[in-house]
Amino acid sequence: MTIKCSVFIATSLDGFIARKNGDLDWLPGSDGAAEIEDYGFKEFFLSIDTLVIGRNTYELALTFKEWPYRGKNVVVLSSRFPKTPKNLAQGVEGTSLSPAELIHRLASSGSKHVYVDGGKTIQSFLHADLIHEMTITRIPILIGEGISLFGPLAHDIKLAHLTTITFESGFVKSKYKVTTTS
Amino acid sequence: MTIKCSVFIATSLDGFIARKNGDLDWLPGSDGAAEIEDYGFKEFFLSIDTLVIGRNTYELALTFKEWPYRGKNVVVLSSRFPKTPKNLAQGVEGTSLSPAELIHRLASSGSKHVYVDGGKTIQSFLHADLIHEMTITRIPILIGEGISLFGPLAHDIKLAHLTTITFESGFVKSKYKVTTTS
Repeated sequence: MTIKCSVFIATSLDGFIARKNGDLDWLPGSDGAAEIEDYGFKEFFLSIDTLVIGRNTYELALTFKEWPYRGKNVVVLSSRFPKTPKNLAQGVEGTSLSPAELIHRLASSGSKHVYVDGGKTIQSFLHADLIHEMTITRIPILIGEGISLFGPLAHDIKLAHLTTITFESGFVKSKYKVTTTS
Repeated sequence: MTIKCSVFIATSLDGFIARKNGDLDWLPGSDGAAEIEDYGFKEFFLSIDTLVIGRNTYELALTFKEWPYRGKNVVVLSSRFPKTPKNLAQGVEGTSLSPAELIHRLASSGSKHVYVDGGKTIQSFLHADLIHEMTITRIPILIGEGISLFGPLAHDIKLAHLTTITFESGFVKSKYKVTTTS
């Protein structure tokens, strides 16, 4: 397969992607204020053709003024696919396939680069050894508790550090390639 | 008080400082093989006068061929101070003081820079707003579970990013200063 699965996410210094209730109030820029710096997100987003997200991430995206995944194929991993507004139906699908089955199907249908997003979804893809690259931006704050980026694994996953970029805001963005999974 | 408390520690990419049983086998160099790169530890260690550690860290240090904290004042936070070999008695003391009480006492006795080490100890000092600087070196591996560097907090702790250095090994070392604790 020539398909690649990537993670591109921000976490608190203590490894949380959101507070327990999903709040991102601790993440500068999450209030929708003018973003001077996008931390490379646009470039990354242009490189992917498909998003695989969980139901929570999907429902969060539905609350945005504009559909944030316009032009991309979106797959929502959920045994219970939520009601989809008519104007989004095109390009959005639900599935109860396993991560491995889904990636096999996406590869067969020509997908080259998949953006895997959302805590549970990322964890299930890591657990299934399906993530190839991870870009993690560390926000200089400790929030103490919340939704973890990482979770239990079947075995250690080794990565190779590719690049780290620091920003005036104090954000530190590191890109890693998964090298071994044994 | 002019006393400063610092953390200098390595964690897996998923935030663990050791496996659940304390193992560091995932941390390159922990096997005692010749270290070409010390990641700035020696320089940091020379800058501190006192270590505050927990009983687990103390008992681990006792297993080393050489006492790793030679020349430093060592305080072991423990309600039940372990038996101390005679040849280490000098410079090592146990205490059941709270972190705040201990730091007040150390400051009064002239300590200027304290190295706070060990998972529980770091967490209790962060919880008590007593950490001034943190140097965290991220090892490019996910281990899935283990002893966490961070734990619950009374409130968010904001930090300012000072420097990040990357190493050929893939280690990424970031230094932060605690700026606000409310």
